[in-house]
Amino acid sequence: MEKHEQRIERLPNFLNEEEVIDLASIYGTPLYVYDEVNMLASATDAKRFNNPFGLTVRYAMKANPRQEILELFREQGLSIDASSEYEVVEALEAGFEPENILLTSQDYPQLDILKYFVDRGVKYNACSLKQLRNFGEVLPNHEVGLRINTGLGSGSNNKTNVGGPTSPFGIWHEDLSSAKEILDDYGLIVERFHSHIGSGSDPEEWKKIAKMSIDLMQSNSEIFRKVKTINFGGGYKVGRLISESSTNLREISQPIAREVKKYFEETGMPLKMEIEPGTFLVANAGVILASVRDIKRTGREGFTHIILDSGMTENLRPSLYNAAHPISGVPIRDSGETDEVIVYGRACESGDLISPNPEGAPGELQTRKIKRVEIGDFAVIGGAGAYCESMSAVGYNSYPSAPALMKMAGGKIKHLKPRTIKERPVRHDL
Amino acid sequence: MEKHEQRIERLPNFLNEEEVIDLASIYGTPLYVYDEVNMLASATDAKRFNNPFGLTVRYAMKANPRQEILELFREQGLSIDASSEYEVVEALEAGFEPENILLTSQDYPQLDILKYFVDRGVKYNACSLKQLRNFGEVLPNHEVGLRINTGLGSGSNNKTNVGGPTSPFGIWHEDLSSAKEILDDYGLIVERFHSHIGSGSDPEEWKKIAKMSIDLMQSNSEIFRKVKTINFGGGYKVGRLISESSTNLREISQPIAREVKKYFEETGMPLKMEIEPGTFLVANAGVILASVRDIKRTGREGFTHIILDSGMTENLRPSLYNAAHPISGVPIRDSGETDEVIVYGRACESGDLISPNPEGAPGELQTRKIKRVEIGDFAVIGGAGAYCESMSAVGYNSYPSAPALMKMAGGKIKHLKPRTIKERPVRHDL
Repeated sequence: MEKHEQRIERLPNFLNEEEVIDLASIYGTPLYVYDEVNMLASATDAKRFNNPFGLTVRYAMKANPRQEILELFREQGLSIDASSEYEVVEALEAGFEPENILLTSQDYPQLDILKYFVDRGVKYNACSLKQLRNFGEVLPNHEVGLRINTGLGSGSNNKTNVGGPTSPFGIWHEDLSSAKEILDDYGLIVERFHSHIGSGSDPEEWKKIAKMSIDLMQSNSEIFRKVKTINFGGGYKVGRLISESSTNLREISQPIAREVKKYFEETGMPLKMEIEPGTFLVANAGVILASVRDIKRTGREGFTHIILDSGMTENLRPSLYNAAHPISGVPIRDSGETDEVIVYGRACESGDLISPNPEGAPGELQTRKIKRVEIGDFAVIGGAGAYCESMSAVGYNSYPSAPALMKMAGGKIKHLKPRTIKERPVRHDL
Repeated sequence: MEKHEQRIERLPNFLNEEEVIDLASIYGTPLYVYDEVNMLASATDAKRFNNPFGLTVRYAMKANPRQEILELFREQGLSIDASSEYEVVEALEAGFEPENILLTSQDYPQLDILKYFVDRGVKYNACSLKQLRNFGEVLPNHEVGLRINTGLGSGSNNKTNVGGPTSPFGIWHEDLSSAKEILDDYGLIVERFHSHIGSGSDPEEWKKIAKMSIDLMQSNSEIFRKVKTINFGGGYKVGRLISESSTNLREISQPIAREVKKYFEETGMPLKMEIEPGTFLVANAGVILASVRDIKRTGREGFTHIILDSGMTENLRPSLYNAAHPISGVPIRDSGETDEVIVYGRACESGDLISPNPEGAPGELQTRKIKRVEIGDFAVIGGAGAYCESMSAVGYNSYPSAPALMKMAGGKIKHLKPRTIKERPVRHDL
């Protein structure tokens, strides 16, 4: 392994070292800390997405379905992208109006639940012919959305993808004639076109995606001519490390908005636009505070290994996707020195690694430069607001799940969740 | 992606198709089903590990810490390998005598808890100099174990490992002089040598591992001369697919036992042997029953995508490690046909893939040949007894956690756990 020279990552913009030490000492570690101000700011950013005929920003709540986060975005006028019927229930519990919730799922609710939701206003995106038929059976002569796999993906043809032949998401574009038959059988009207097909931060790429979606709508106008809303999904890249940059939503939305305007000029239909950011809204509004539990050095040719009390049990992304999160050392007494280290969680598992090589093979290591820490000092894992608390190997090695706090605008700390262990009986089993 | 010709995987030896359909229909899916007879058989196998002076088989309970599984192995005379202080509590709750529990952890309990445990008989393996110092502080003049990183690993030098310079596990062999100082300071006696350094199923490899451990003990006899127990850890490969074979424990244990005998001849010390199987004891004694929720075909050049209601939320291993689990289709009405399919979970996540290419890059797909299924039919994910229920992205997309059953010797079904959602308040917070 090459020892990798890197800059020292900054702390998140909402916690200084003193606050890290205070919170970690008071609440114990591991500990999720979220920040209201960052969430408010990203919600404001998202609402600036260019649009000629209106915009709905749907929070992809799978990124972090904490009730308080849902409530915050509800107050900001955001709507909901729900990935399961269970998420719909949680969004309702957080006070969202049913008509502001859109269910787009790989699975589907029981038919009576689906009818119950839609009768009360919840919007539905059919993601397969089966889902469309389900909808028609219990909700004939209703409006429905379609999630389409346009055939285009981003990435290799050997891998899973959000679009293209290796994607399990959406209705395959060559199946539109079958979809038409179902629509006709049940008198359904397509009101929403959904085509989340990956993305990135390149405006040119987004222009291509928008154009292709609209071309597909136009070449299948018998299905899509009554569409009122076009949904581009999420996937806006967010820079977590200093070296990474984030998507400029105003910039990437310009070519998309132009395509929507052009569609209006050609068809007379003013499409409302929808986006579904998750990572963009919360990734950099959350961190994990951890304690340095152990430090091991493996000889002159080896490395300095830092063991934290948080890893895959709170943040699976480094283990699962080789994702690079910023890691900061927070010494109680700052020596002014730095160290190059490899950082691990505490599970008895060789995959419980927090500093993978993001360009490498699974489990490949990368050293990180951090402020020198000793056992008993603290560390901060940044960019941990999205897909960490919601998608981790929680409970592995029987460790309890971490508590969560929110730093409110104004500085007050709100306690969201205590330390808990394993499951509780089902609250709503659909 | 190459379409991969494969044999159809057999169902697990404890469920036929009729039973799969019955259990899935009665209890709903996803559903973990464990099998008592397989666990009893693997426990018997493990106890046959060759040993000249006694053997302790410790169940690595992180593989599956269900109380009923712990109780079953307790009744079979097995002991416990606990990876955290929380696991110790769970083992005690399952009725294990404290002296049959060995705590070997990357993290460590509070000092008062450590003392409480050891005073009552729990055995402790110090895995770092810090852990050894902790032990000495509250338990001077006691016997203790040491987990050693002998410097040898299996695999590449870029990746995390259970041994070698890229491993965070155990006390680095060059630090033994520092360990000696701590031992002397506190009057500690090393009673156990632990050197889990990966493995496999090759007897020659195991001979090498055993020899190296014993050589290291002999060349540091001032530390290890009073050692009574040598622990080789776990990691015995288990074949989950038809094409894979399992470790023959009797075969690999012969050269190990010979090394232990040789040590006795040279030193007069009869070493008790310890092994810590997890996967070996439970992997093939558990399956996940799932429903076929959707089927999508992506054109002539594309694939047949099967969407189950179980994936990374019940079994993270395919997503995390490209692990290949046997997948069987269980049609309610068997057409006699087969299909080549790609199999997914239901999370709105491109990584929620159950049929990865085990030789490929992360997310790389592989088709599997299964009995032809339709929506509403069932599927069985085999080899799911170990590191599935205990190490999954449970709760992602807000799906509830799956219930668990045990098929008892005699055929009776025991209900272990209902369907539950998210966490419950902490029961024992150490």
